Amino acid sequence: MTTQIPDAVKPWFDAPEFATIATMLPDGQPHLSVVWVERDGDELLVSTVKGRRKHLNIEKNSKVTLLVFPKEAPYSYVEVRGTATMTEEGGRELIDRAAKAYMDLDRYPMDDGTDNVRVVVRITPEKIVTLLR
Amino acid sequence: MTTQIPDAVKPWFDAPEFATIATMLPDGQPHLSVVWVERDGDELLVSTVKGRRKHLNIEKNSKVTLLVFPKEAPYSYVEVRGTATMTEEGGRELIDRAAKAYMDLDRYPMDDGTDNVRVVVRITPEKIVTLLR
Repeated sequence: MTTQIPDAVKPWFDAPEFATIATMLPDGQPHLSVVWVERDGDELLVSTVKGRRKHLNIEKNSKVTLLVFPKEAPYSYVEVRGTATMTEEGGRELIDRAAKAYMDLDRYPMDDGTDNVRVVVRITPEKIVTLLR
Repeated sequence: MTTQIPDAVKPWFDAPEFATIATMLPDGQPHLSVVWVERDGDELLVSTVKGRRKHLNIEKNSKVTLLVFPKEAPYSYVEVRGTATMTEEGGRELIDRAAKAYMDLDRYPMDDGTDNVRVVVRITPEKIVTLLR
């Protein structure tokens, strides 16, 4: 079962707005972080780094939830509950596209000089809750 | 064990900024919503309504995590992982104080004409992660 992203909120993923993603820590506590997000049809892509907290959490528990409230309309939001799959394929390309979208840079600068292995987190929505105000 | 809120991020809770709160749905999926937040020393207060999703989730699982990234500095954030307790006492006063802080209204307008029972969610931090950029 998948769920479609409503047209009304697509601009938030394409704008781009910052998103908050929740994953599960091994002890059952939710973990939150701020992420860039790219929309691929009705799926959402988020970049992380191999070995980083988000990567470790999703490896253990693929249930993730992502929320966006637009900067200029913070009483509106979309909450996407779904399942994440991860792959290293395209990891560098994704973070560079996001750097272009969010920072207008051709290349993500913060990984320069590191041996970070970039991972694509692909979120398939199972339930989407939207409130427009 | 409690944890102190760093001075550098206190203005975000007093500004006020919007926060995202994660609670756990009964099926183990994280639930996210956008909330107003008030700081009481090193604890954080969030308002909800009896019977609403957040209230039901916290009744079953008191582990909650709250994140703020400032609107004007979205690459900085504070993530507060903690435990929530709930009480109806002071529930109306909290939502009215928040309406003042966030909307400059003396009284929260959206509950007018409803029989909403307002609940105070008090979050005691157990771990705080801060990134300032």
